[in-house]
Amino acid sequence: MKAYKATILFTPSPSEFKVLAPGYVLVRNNGTIAAVGEWHEGVIKATKDESVELIDLGDQLLIPAMNDLHVHAPQYANLGIAMDLELLPWLNTYTFPEEMRYADKPYAERLYRRFVSDLVRYGTMRAAVFATIHAPATQLLCDLFQEAGIGGKIGLVGMNRNCPTELSNTTQEAISGTLSVLEHTATMPLVDAIVTPRFVPSCTPDMLAAMGQLAAEKQLPVQSHLSENRSEIAWVKQLDPEASCYADAYRRFGLFGQTPTLMAHCCYPNREEMRLMRENPKTMVVHCPTSNCNLSSGIAPIRQFLEQGTQVALGSDISGGSHLSIFRVMQYAMQMSKLQYSLTNGRSAFLTLSEVFHMATKAGGSFFGNDELGHPGSFEQGYAFDALVLDDSTLRLSDSEEPLHRLERLIYLGDDRHITKRFCQGHVVEMSVVGW
Amino acid sequence: MKAYKATILFTPSPSEFKVLAPGYVLVRNNGTIAAVGEWHEGVIKATKDESVELIDLGDQLLIPAMNDLHVHAPQYANLGIAMDLELLPWLNTYTFPEEMRYADKPYAERLYRRFVSDLVRYGTMRAAVFATIHAPATQLLCDLFQEAGIGGKIGLVGMNRNCPTELSNTTQEAISGTLSVLEHTATMPLVDAIVTPRFVPSCTPDMLAAMGQLAAEKQLPVQSHLSENRSEIAWVKQLDPEASCYADAYRRFGLFGQTPTLMAHCCYPNREEMRLMRENPKTMVVHCPTSNCNLSSGIAPIRQFLEQGTQVALGSDISGGSHLSIFRVMQYAMQMSKLQYSLTNGRSAFLTLSEVFHMATKAGGSFFGNDELGHPGSFEQGYAFDALVLDDSTLRLSDSEEPLHRLERLIYLGDDRHITKRFCQGHVVEMSVVGW
Repeated sequence: MKAYKATILFTPSPSEFKVLAPGYVLVRNNGTIAAVGEWHEGVIKATKDESVELIDLGDQLLIPAMNDLHVHAPQYANLGIAMDLELLPWLNTYTFPEEMRYADKPYAERLYRRFVSDLVRYGTMRAAVFATIHAPATQLLCDLFQEAGIGGKIGLVGMNRNCPTELSNTTQEAISGTLSVLEHTATMPLVDAIVTPRFVPSCTPDMLAAMGQLAAEKQLPVQSHLSENRSEIAWVKQLDPEASCYADAYRRFGLFGQTPTLMAHCCYPNREEMRLMRENPKTMVVHCPTSNCNLSSGIAPIRQFLEQGTQVALGSDISGGSHLSIFRVMQYAMQMSKLQYSLTNGRSAFLTLSEVFHMATKAGGSFFGNDELGHPGSFEQGYAFDALVLDDSTLRLSDSEEPLHRLERLIYLGDDRHITKRFCQGHVVEMSVVGW
Repeated sequence: MKAYKATILFTPSPSEFKVLAPGYVLVRNNGTIAAVGEWHEGVIKATKDESVELIDLGDQLLIPAMNDLHVHAPQYANLGIAMDLELLPWLNTYTFPEEMRYADKPYAERLYRRFVSDLVRYGTMRAAVFATIHAPATQLLCDLFQEAGIGGKIGLVGMNRNCPTELSNTTQEAISGTLSVLEHTATMPLVDAIVTPRFVPSCTPDMLAAMGQLAAEKQLPVQSHLSENRSEIAWVKQLDPEASCYADAYRRFGLFGQTPTLMAHCCYPNREEMRLMRENPKTMVVHCPTSNCNLSSGIAPIRQFLEQGTQVALGSDISGGSHLSIFRVMQYAMQMSKLQYSLTNGRSAFLTLSEVFHMATKAGGSFFGNDELGHPGSFEQGYAFDALVLDDSTLRLSDSEEPLHRLERLIYLGDDRHITKRFCQGHVVEMSVVGW
């Protein structure tokens, strides 16, 4: 076993941080957490079977690693550019043409390597990823996650209407492609397949039905987009007039919480959609505030979701989002909620630091892992040890600063330079220097 | 003279970028620009009086440097922390106690050094700064600007009501303190005094009147805060019932455009306030979108200001704002305007990249400099050469990327590592490594 001693912060619940200054985390060889507590001499004891190696991280902070629950890997070349359009014209003008390029495996490899390298750089140890319709490139992306040592649910995208022919697959291809990813990842402990219909406007009822059936049969999780933008919602209403709301256009095909489900955005849920979320607690909202700014989508009512018990995690939503760092996404989540507080004259309480940190760690992490390996996102017994070591010495303005202020400043001002070590499932994840 | 060859971008007007790829800027020894244009062999000629040294910056970008038109230097220790309150309780709980510490000159020196060093780090070459009521620390801040070689308008703050006794000065002290800064900076070519009443709630009519008189007599510029937050506006209405609106509470004391005036925030102008802005074109709005998020203030109607011809510049508003980088502030300015676009169902067109870049450079720069030294902010003949050299090689995803996309990505993803050289008034400004 290994024991890490540091200034430790994590959020067992959304309402508060647990701070251990100093504290320790004892990690078994399988990457799960055996014990956590305040540090004092002699607190760490070896068992009959396992000796303990103590790693003293000094004055650095130790926190759970970041989880990105919504990210489009094949949009990476458009990162930080082309943000002058709303969602639907943006997809047609910039995004679909870029995703088409992933039919070319060498191109895919070059960009996917950079993407995975930067996920690691910014401290994201698990991600739920949209790939493209292309099975070879999607399998390659799984290999790159495996090679880097980080965890992912990787989705081969199903899309067969309202998009370029070159970026369409048939229902049969979407199903067999997803099965090929499932098979390809069978021996990868941290990488899995996820059923991924792009969104209702891109998928015929036939495709949605087949994907729902696949999720049920193989007990696979699901990810898609929901109520991101007003024009999109109006379009879905036209496309599926029988659905009681946008969410219902997934639910009636078995794609809304029958298995664990991620729904990105959810900016404009109506009452019916809020009700469906309550009734389907395996559906998690993925809040992507950076993207919702950049694409003029709006501000999602996160406080309302939390109040009714709907789970909320965070997503970078590259390249609608403009930065991979989930630290930045936490910042925007707080800031957008403060604007909402202002716009509602204070009726909607804004999100606190512990609430957004919990979304980025424990809530997001609950989507990954399993009973045997634990779930990442918290430092509690039985959890998977996914962690970041943070050196904030260049940001500190005095020695007396409290751990929580140090973490807060890191969230607002820190960057990859402040992350000195990364762990996924107990293993050190090294930064790779990719070729450019 | 020196000639700089690089990929050059700047905004002569808000509506578009001028891109020279490659181009050159020819800079006289006094730091003003003699000529600008597309590069070709033999284009640069020495004059009878001055020879030319060519500096080839290769494939790097060369842009005008950043200007920060609203920043509180003595709030730097609170950077990135303590953001759980709205403006008025935030001032009382976190900000005033911190500013009180600037009575202690060694404390002030330690923090002000860090502040100035970080301004340079993030590429801000001119700033309009709120100091505190303390004359020794304020003069020291001027010295540090001078030492660093960057430009500033430094304001000794006047405040004599609704604040702790330790942070109050008398009208007489505010005037004599401002005069002491004026005298102290008399021989500093890039550093000046600015008349700085904190805001109406902190200043009695007597103090406002004396400061307006001082501005008129010495022809000094003015800076203050306006209509940042709803509670503040209601309070001003109580405090000065005779004023027709918040802006009028400055105007009637000669503090609203009688000399060049910066009004930070302006989130909630009513019709009367909009009218006063039109009628006082020397008043410039300083948009501080990061701060307006963090303090739950709201979204300023920047499009409306631009449409009626009111000038708008950008401010970091440390420590309401959480980052000194004006690159970040540009990003938030676009993003907030996109949320406004969404909230108004598309009635308020969002801010473009060239518009926010123009605010950060040419509009903000117009507040600094003079006829002899030129104004910073653009690469046009007669302008002061304030510039940044940007190396985006670690951010580039292909060799064929357009200069404008390269700049856009730098704005969203870049940081201090990408700024390889900084110029203010033609001189290289070196990064200083301050002591921690």
